[in-house]
Amino acid sequence: MRKLGRHILAEFSGCDREVLNDLQAIECHLKEAARKARATIVDSVFHQYNPHGLSGVVVIAESHISIHTWPEYGYAAADFFTCGDQVDPWEACRYLKEKLGCRDLRTREIARGIPGGNDEILPHKPVESPMARGELA
Amino acid sequence: MRKLGRHILAEFSGCDREVLNDLQAIECHLKEAARKARATIVDSVFHQYNPHGLSGVVVIAESHISIHTWPEYGYAAADFFTCGDQVDPWEACRYLKEKLGCRDLRTREIARGIPGGNDEILPHKPVESPMARGELA
Repeated sequence: MRKLGRHILAEFSGCDREVLNDLQAIECHLKEAARKARATIVDSVFHQYNPHGLSGVVVIAESHISIHTWPEYGYAAADFFTCGDQVDPWEACRYLKEKLGCRDLRTREIARGIPGGNDEILPHKPVESPMARGELA
Repeated sequence: MRKLGRHILAEFSGCDREVLNDLQAIECHLKEAARKARATIVDSVFHQYNPHGLSGVVVIAESHISIHTWPEYGYAAADFFTCGDQVDPWEACRYLKEKLGCRDLRTREIARGIPGGNDEILPHKPVESPMARGELA
């Protein structure tokens, strides 16, 4: 595979149920997790469900971080998908584990990219382009 | 695992490069893909990068569909994460493959949920709650 990104799928269980249902807290924690990973936040969307549970996605210049929570199960499914070698998705994952009061974290890291090739790592941003970190369109 | 959702990670390569850089087209296709899966669209966010490439996420009541494109490689990484038995993430995946003019699609389907248990399937929405499909908070 010609690799472009790293994608961590995280199952957070045994979490603080109140935090999992607190939209403002989750938004704050997810954005801070992105910063911990040294990602550049581009946009975000958060939604609270009735009677409980919420979804949140932070789009970053390096892909995205997402969460879906089930307070009734004390569980959240989160994704940390990052491209490039300037960001570390594990920093975001560890930060969120702490903030959710998670007692059981299971993760799988999956390489994303173009099938075939010799396991080379492709640049995820054009070389010599004006789009350096933080200089978005 | 006590299963809550199905997550398809899709690598779309050999795609139409113009489509991959067309924000309006991608937004249209991603939302229609969600409808093809019989998902309920909650919110969405799309962003165009300079000089090319884009990110898009459609939050659905059943989790999310996302895409990140690299027109320069003719490649897009997409995720189809759905919960519940009313939606079919594969319908969305197949639809998007066609609309991207994709010649090589590689997918991995990963179960999401709470580690442990007897492979039971948990209800992803509270039973008997007013939150039926399409009746969001």
